[in-house]
Amino acid sequence: MIRIVARSVVQTYQKEEYLRLARELIVQSRKEPGCISYELYEDIHNPNVLTFMEEWEDQTAVDRHNNSTHFQTLLPKMQLLCVGSTEITLYRTAHYE
Amino acid sequence: MIRIVARSVVQTYQKEEYLRLARELIVQSRKEPGCISYELYEDIHNPNVLTFMEEWEDQTAVDRHNNSTHFQTLLPKMQLLCVGSTEITLYRTAHYE
Repeated sequence: MIRIVARSVVQTYQKEEYLRLARELIVQSRKEPGCISYELYEDIHNPNVLTFMEEWEDQTAVDRHNNSTHFQTLLPKMQLLCVGSTEITLYRTAHYE
Repeated sequence: MIRIVARSVVQTYQKEEYLRLARELIVQSRKEPGCISYELYEDIHNPNVLTFMEEWEDQTAVDRHNNSTHFQTLLPKMQLLCVGSTEITLYRTAHYE
């Protein structure tokens, strides 16, 4: 399982448009094979910080998602509404047992 | 619901000890009222980056957790094993519908 945390800072006056595009991305991504969850969160202390938290079955599913038409079409549009670039981190479960 | 993402960078030679303390924190925290999930992840591209991802029912549960004996005892010990401070972000679900 791979977990992705993708944090963006949206421009205040563009937030509504960003959420509209995010909604489309979420709806399409959840239909993909290997998508376990795909959620969007807002920083409680800074509502312009919007972070996707995703769970994917494996790297193949992540690669397929990154190459999907909806991702390739929507992401550039969403990035134009943000300040700076999106910080993306890929995680695996830590083994602490 | 509140989601917490807490990212730390552990010193390489202290990682084993950090994971031992993290395990104790996870076991105790999952028993707390209002804890929906409490997981530890490792950055796929930098195994010294260890990030807790937590879900809590509400702010009362988060406050109780922050004041718990296990959190107050274990966290300072874990921070001594890290480089810099832990980045903690509290999130709520974004409303995009």
